[in-house]
Amino acid sequence: MGKYCFGVDVGGTTVKLGLFNTNGDLMEKWEIPTVTEDDGKAILPDCAKSILKKMNEREMDRTEVVGVGIGAPGPIDSEGTLYGAVNLGWGTMSLKKELQTLLNMPVEAGNDANVAALGEAWQGGAKGYEDVVVVTLGTGVGGGIIINGKMVAGATGAAGEIGHMHVNDDETEPCNCGNCGCLEEYVSATGIVRMAKRKLAEDDRPSLMRKDDLSAKDVWDAVKAGDTVAIEVAEDFGWYLGKAMALVANVSNPEIFVIGGGVSKAGNVLLDYIQKYFQKYAFKGCRGALFTLATLGNDAGIYGAARLVLK
Amino acid sequence: MGKYCFGVDVGGTTVKLGLFNTNGDLMEKWEIPTVTEDDGKAILPDCAKSILKKMNEREMDRTEVVGVGIGAPGPIDSEGTLYGAVNLGWGTMSLKKELQTLLNMPVEAGNDANVAALGEAWQGGAKGYEDVVVVTLGTGVGGGIIINGKMVAGATGAAGEIGHMHVNDDETEPCNCGNCGCLEEYVSATGIVRMAKRKLAEDDRPSLMRKDDLSAKDVWDAVKAGDTVAIEVAEDFGWYLGKAMALVANVSNPEIFVIGGGVSKAGNVLLDYIQKYFQKYAFKGCRGALFTLATLGNDAGIYGAARLVLK
Repeated sequence: MGKYCFGVDVGGTTVKLGLFNTNGDLMEKWEIPTVTEDDGKAILPDCAKSILKKMNEREMDRTEVVGVGIGAPGPIDSEGTLYGAVNLGWGTMSLKKELQTLLNMPVEAGNDANVAALGEAWQGGAKGYEDVVVVTLGTGVGGGIIINGKMVAGATGAAGEIGHMHVNDDETEPCNCGNCGCLEEYVSATGIVRMAKRKLAEDDRPSLMRKDDLSAKDVWDAVKAGDTVAIEVAEDFGWYLGKAMALVANVSNPEIFVIGGGVSKAGNVLLDYIQKYFQKYAFKGCRGALFTLATLGNDAGIYGAARLVLK
Repeated sequence: MGKYCFGVDVGGTTVKLGLFNTNGDLMEKWEIPTVTEDDGKAILPDCAKSILKKMNEREMDRTEVVGVGIGAPGPIDSEGTLYGAVNLGWGTMSLKKELQTLLNMPVEAGNDANVAALGEAWQGGAKGYEDVVVVTLGTGVGGGIIINGKMVAGATGAAGEIGHMHVNDDETEPCNCGNCGCLEEYVSATGIVRMAKRKLAEDDRPSLMRKDDLSAKDVWDAVKAGDTVAIEVAEDFGWYLGKAMALVANVSNPEIFVIGGGVSKAGNVLLDYIQKYFQKYAFKGCRGALFTLATLGNDAGIYGAARLVLK
């Protein structure tokens, strides 16, 4: 019987790896560089070598390892097929089968944002819940849908692409995806700054946000300090995200929403603004959903990857 | 080994019942009246009696029956707990356990709209697909989300409540649910008529829709006849529903959307208007989703109920 499993989170510059026991305790974590040269052909062999080396160090037998889960930055369907990962140089391939061949162990694969969501649902902010939605507010906006404790990959690995929900018909500036009016354009770190700058340009009211190199953190610090203009930005943030979460609830009706990513470091104040508008727009049968902050930080990916092979 | 199963669809006036083999073939269907007196306390015993009578008629043994699936008009979670069904007089109860006790056979239960969606995904318009979204355009708008061939119930049985997605910030007339701007207010049979009447009141342009007792069918007949005003209504219909389906795709990324309900009798013309705006608003990774019409009509509920006990 397997006692351990590995979780692998492939990023553009480093690969994070974690060794877990089957209770979900992280026993050790480490990183290796992501070598993207030559269409990233060294990445999977490097991962495999690093895992086999760790097993050797700890005198682990293959029979003691349940398997290896891996998350990568691209659309990946429920069969473990990746439809390209631009940042890594990878094209379409069966990520699951390729790593399985290298390791001779069971492998499961998923999109990195979905996998991180699974980690938060399993051992993070939503521990103990089975129906979870995770939203990650970073440079972009990622997300993941968990139903009955399992990650939803979608037909083409694009489930949980919450950042690209269309939420503003009047937007003229395009999102990175090419569409106009995506949620990401308002509630990501860059989106919050963009909203703040638009608001500041409207008039000459004094504001703590009138400074060079304004960051999303500056905006939330100003909100906490009672800055009137910043509070208007926070209301807009809550309106966009709360309304979008209400729309998500019409689809999957989760028990709990988890808000993560760099922006979530602002803390509970975020949740107040989101919940205000969630309650306004949610269908009455979905209004009982809870809201909480993510707790695993950058480790969410390795947790979720490990979970992929345990369930 | 079981060779048969029963599907039960409880409506406000009749209960539909179906006998299926485990290949999913409908062998016989029939109806009994829904007796809603005394808080509907006779409904489940009546269903049980009708099933046992049918088994007796066909000289079936309990061991030949895999189980009984039941759909009912109220929120039902994945454990088979119903949180009230106003039309039947039922309060909160374990629908699954109550019917199980009466029949001494395995029972599974689900919300009627979700169950009908499962039926369409299994043996109807989406036969052969695993990731499906069904939208039912009737007096109201219902829906169901199917992931990996399974129905999503949601934390409180409110998954797939697509009709109550908030799609219009400017709406002042409330939906039956109490919110304003729900999808149901525009794309249900009554919603289409409402949109048409609003459009007709804007000016005096001649239109085939200028008649007493305008119905959704009249609107679509006018569209097919090339009526300019009706075509504007169809565009609005497509804009609301296509945009909403794009939002749903961001969450569950289905392979196929199935459009059912009375309104869908208008045929493929509906799909053209929906797809036009779906393509405009969908995230690029979700744009490959197909659109088709439902095929099971009023039998979708018994098919889906039967499926509940087979998977």
